[in-house]
Amino acid sequence: MFRKEIKVLDCTIRDGGLMNNWHFTDDYVKTVYDACVESGIDYMEIGYKSSEKSYSRKEVGSWKFCDEKALKAIVGDNNTSLKLSAMVDIGRIEPEDISPASDSVLDMIRVAAYVHQIDKAIWLAEHCIEKGYETTINLMAVSNVMERDLEEALEDVAKSKLAIFYLVDSFGSLYCEQVEMLIKKYQEYLPDRTIGVHMHNNMQLAFSNTVTGIIHNANMLDATFLGIGRGAGNCPLEILLSFLKNPKYKIRPILKVIQEHMIKMQKEIEWGYHIPYLITGAMNQHPRSAMKWMNGEEKDDFVAFFNHMNEKTDL
Amino acid sequence: MFRKEIKVLDCTIRDGGLMNNWHFTDDYVKTVYDACVESGIDYMEIGYKSSEKSYSRKEVGSWKFCDEKALKAIVGDNNTSLKLSAMVDIGRIEPEDISPASDSVLDMIRVAAYVHQIDKAIWLAEHCIEKGYETTINLMAVSNVMERDLEEALEDVAKSKLAIFYLVDSFGSLYCEQVEMLIKKYQEYLPDRTIGVHMHNNMQLAFSNTVTGIIHNANMLDATFLGIGRGAGNCPLEILLSFLKNPKYKIRPILKVIQEHMIKMQKEIEWGYHIPYLITGAMNQHPRSAMKWMNGEEKDDFVAFFNHMNEKTDL
Repeated sequence: MFRKEIKVLDCTIRDGGLMNNWHFTDDYVKTVYDACVESGIDYMEIGYKSSEKSYSRKEVGSWKFCDEKALKAIVGDNNTSLKLSAMVDIGRIEPEDISPASDSVLDMIRVAAYVHQIDKAIWLAEHCIEKGYETTINLMAVSNVMERDLEEALEDVAKSKLAIFYLVDSFGSLYCEQVEMLIKKYQEYLPDRTIGVHMHNNMQLAFSNTVTGIIHNANMLDATFLGIGRGAGNCPLEILLSFLKNPKYKIRPILKVIQEHMIKMQKEIEWGYHIPYLITGAMNQHPRSAMKWMNGEEKDDFVAFFNHMNEKTDL
Repeated sequence: MFRKEIKVLDCTIRDGGLMNNWHFTDDYVKTVYDACVESGIDYMEIGYKSSEKSYSRKEVGSWKFCDEKALKAIVGDNNTSLKLSAMVDIGRIEPEDISPASDSVLDMIRVAAYVHQIDKAIWLAEHCIEKGYETTINLMAVSNVMERDLEEALEDVAKSKLAIFYLVDSFGSLYCEQVEMLIKKYQEYLPDRTIGVHMHNNMQLAFSNTVTGIIHNANMLDATFLGIGRGAGNCPLEILLSFLKNPKYKIRPILKVIQEHMIKMQKEIEWGYHIPYLITGAMNQHPRSAMKWMNGEEKDDFVAFFNHMNEKTDL
């Protein structure tokens, strides 16, 4: 598959950080950055941008804040073809925390929002656009959104200056027919915008749903090294690059990081396909119950977790 | 997804045995059998049926032979709703090794064949049909078959008495558009037959390709407990059952076997998604090079394996 409009965004540090509170070493972040540059990846999302008052630095690492000093320690002035992104959560950042793009090594701000936050998200996204950033809105948990609410949100986005809008399978519960239906709806309401896809692997569908996105003209594709990410993880970057035929992408630098860092890291931070994540995904539930179970003493008692989830849901 | 024609075939012992030379204990085979019965699975493929002269019992376990005595020690007379299957390889069995169905606890014989063996496969399949078995032909390695050869094979199958024909992604190299194209071709040539799908997980597409099969009216679906199978393994049975909505299927008995047996077994026999399998799958190559690499000292040097595969292919 080669379509020149396709852009790949690596979110290893940002989404992977959900598994270790962003306690990656600077050396590791630099390694990922260098590999992204060498592989021809288009964007690297290096973390969240958050207010200092939203989180304690005793609890979360510096990639939850992405201040310029920390960024520059890794990327210098980033004189490369790789663009840098940070994600922001509604309510976890003030507009004044975001400096003008001309003063930042960041090129893109991605606004994550639930459907009830869409107006705040549009306001914040337009604020970022005015400050000179490329900007996206990533509408989370769409598998739990009623169709009329989704359509209203899309109507609001259509009126905005936003250029890129993301289909996000937060719970890893979508399969190809649902992805196709949603992308077509997004394109119907936003015919002149770029659609992105961000998939989770609870049912081993993160890569395949990304392919469904590609087939239906999604042109921003999120992926991570060895699929690292919250819970079951994301679309594995190495599979995506082995599928995309654009000669600008190179897979060897990704494989090198996987063999030197990710295999060991996965033994310490257990992202990836595990039965509790399958169960929450198949039930269209937030993975938090599964993550809690995976950290408990009964983690391998899958029948007990299945029974637990069928007795109660904690949405 | 509920379509009453859908049948699920568990091939845990048969395909999983490719990873340990069928050295499963009788207790484990009985555990899988009991769970299949309890879960409402339609068919269980309990091994290969082979001539004693084709393999040494010093090298392979009894599930490479599936003689009646071994079968009956597990299933008795199999007075259950679960049907039992064995696979045969062309050239590894003589017709006289197959007793009449009325003398066997087996209900189904599946004939695995490469495209150049299709006439032998049809002959053997019709021999099995005459002996009273349900019978399939599983056409292997279709991703390496030229279209005209495939069409000739399908024309021959169309003239036969065969009721079930399988799309098999032996190399784990197909993605959804190819699966759709092949299934439609199979149905075009075999409009009155059942199509089955047997997928491998090299690119984490085994379940998703099975779903593509379902969407395009494949009604025999192969899967295994926790995806055990050659190399990257098969479509995981627990994901498939969580997707199928037919109330006859129950997932708890499968989860129980996974937590009590499969997690530990996977640490000993490393099936599943690993980078060398991704590389052979993406290159449309037999997984044998990757399996050899995975058994070597350099197993985690993925860059070296990638270079090795780009220097030579051993098809």
